[in-house]
Amino acid sequence: MFCEEKIDMKKIAVDAMGGDNAPKAIIEGVNRALAEFSDIEIQLYGDESKIKEYLTATERVSIIHTEEKINSDDEPAKAIRRKKKASMVLGANAVKEGTADAVISAGNTGALLAAGLFVVGRIKGIDRPGLMSTLPTLDGKGYDMLDLGANAENTPKHLHQYAILGSFYAKNVRDIAKPRVGLLNNGTEATKGDPLHKEAYALLAEDASLNFVGNVEARDLMNGVADVVVSDGFTGNAVLKTMEGTALNIMGGLKSSIKSGGLKAKLGAFLLKDSLYQLKDTMDYSSAGGAVLFGLKAPIVKCHGSSDAQAVYYTIRQVRTMLETNVVGQLVETFTPKD
Amino acid sequence: MFCEEKIDMKKIAVDAMGGDNAPKAIIEGVNRALAEFSDIEIQLYGDESKIKEYLTATERVSIIHTEEKINSDDEPAKAIRRKKKASMVLGANAVKEGTADAVISAGNTGALLAAGLFVVGRIKGIDRPGLMSTLPTLDGKGYDMLDLGANAENTPKHLHQYAILGSFYAKNVRDIAKPRVGLLNNGTEATKGDPLHKEAYALLAEDASLNFVGNVEARDLMNGVADVVVSDGFTGNAVLKTMEGTALNIMGGLKSSIKSGGLKAKLGAFLLKDSLYQLKDTMDYSSAGGAVLFGLKAPIVKCHGSSDAQAVYYTIRQVRTMLETNVVGQLVETFTPKD
Repeated sequence: MFCEEKIDMKKIAVDAMGGDNAPKAIIEGVNRALAEFSDIEIQLYGDESKIKEYLTATERVSIIHTEEKINSDDEPAKAIRRKKKASMVLGANAVKEGTADAVISAGNTGALLAAGLFVVGRIKGIDRPGLMSTLPTLDGKGYDMLDLGANAENTPKHLHQYAILGSFYAKNVRDIAKPRVGLLNNGTEATKGDPLHKEAYALLAEDASLNFVGNVEARDLMNGVADVVVSDGFTGNAVLKTMEGTALNIMGGLKSSIKSGGLKAKLGAFLLKDSLYQLKDTMDYSSAGGAVLFGLKAPIVKCHGSSDAQAVYYTIRQVRTMLETNVVGQLVETFTPKD
Repeated sequence: MFCEEKIDMKKIAVDAMGGDNAPKAIIEGVNRALAEFSDIEIQLYGDESKIKEYLTATERVSIIHTEEKINSDDEPAKAIRRKKKASMVLGANAVKEGTADAVISAGNTGALLAAGLFVVGRIKGIDRPGLMSTLPTLDGKGYDMLDLGANAENTPKHLHQYAILGSFYAKNVRDIAKPRVGLLNNGTEATKGDPLHKEAYALLAEDASLNFVGNVEARDLMNGVADVVVSDGFTGNAVLKTMEGTALNIMGGLKSSIKSGGLKAKLGAFLLKDSLYQLKDTMDYSSAGGAVLFGLKAPIVKCHGSSDAQAVYYTIRQVRTMLETNVVGQLVETFTPKD
């Protein structure tokens, strides 16, 4: 007789209709994840007939049919209020009602943030959940940065909370024993910054539970100066978008100068293909998963709008680890006021 | 007999000792500028014997000998107060006393900002001069962005002043008739941003003298969405450093993947050389000159610390245009309260 082990099944709600490549890329990612992980159960929210076109998995998967969906240009808060049957909203509701443990969507970011905040809800004691991603470094190790723009304004206390949130994530999901926390500022010296960043610096330096390494500058982020980078949402958003814009434009510029460079350039590019792909891999951080709206009562994770099946698979893997390590449960424990 | 035209001689003070490649690169840049422009006069501040090693120009150039200089790790305000005979400080003093019209330095940025503010002084009516650079776009036209970090904090009024400053510069120095002004914000919609950016938006939209095109996002800057980009100093600094870091790291990553890619990759890189140089040229914006601390009573311009002779030459050319068009004089006129 074989040993029957009790498996802690992780129930993940997936918005099948969000993103540029939905539902195909979403469902293909789900197929792969279900084949690989025997301890997950996927709930697919969206158009049943379209989902079925791509769904090959037959076990631990269910379809919750709906025809409504949130578009990328919908006004977030309004969409959440009015489109009660949208695939994303139904997913968030499932978490609220306890029938799912987490939500993944590649759809409208603002709407997912709104669904996270208003449907799933904040952890008590966390004032302003932050948007967090694992971003690339040249050595391939990456760093977790938050807030990347869930908030337009933050207080020093929020930034302190982001340091705790990021550290928990790096420890649990990325397996870094003592994550180095850096504060994104306009210089590395301790005296730098506006009042917000000076006060945040003081709070981080005082907190002995953190491995605070001081201020870090935006130009050094890719060099791995910290495992967790704390930022206010306005600056974090600008930095993330600058990285994306600069990287895309350099790669695009290279492509067009190869195109206009004739046969010689084309041959050169052909010979250099492996090196260029290696560089692209370094810059690509989709293997770390999606952006977490961190500080909510459950993992709410945004895949990039242009995610392919592989990126969706990586995000499911990330959410699985978050559930397995109970990182959100630990946060609840930490932030709940003790009597 | 030949016609003798009265030439308006522009007197430019140059810190010969600032920057990684001083005094060689500085003096070689000066040699070239003096040969090209017959209406400039250069005052070189620094170590006479070292300067003479490289100086080939003999006319319209003078050396003001000093052995003191500000180092890159000196604390800015302190250095300005204590090193009264430093090459940079003497240059700023010359402007204050009217013996020079402008200062150029590739030295300590903070010290140059301090020398500009405390020695040369603000234009009456401009609250917080901003650091402005012409940054690259893919189409080669570029845009002027400020504040890039002269200030850690700004008010909506400062941002409004930056829009006016940037527009004056783009018109006069870059010859753009109606410069499009964009406000760097966390989204393009008019309602985006924290209170600072919302209020700044309102001020810019109200000012009919500006060609305000609304909010712009960091990811679109290289696509030429505006001719002038207005930012608070904290965000502007982070964005600039992110651009530098991302571009450097991508280029560095490409280099090292070519190096480790063996003969095939090296041959590919050789064939692709022209395309790579073309890309490098697009990203390089030194031909637009240095970073102007704009809003002072005279042009105070920072060359990049790693400037070569060509970058120094470009900065002298830029300062010459600023003096020729009297852009600072026009600002004084605009900002001086009318009776």
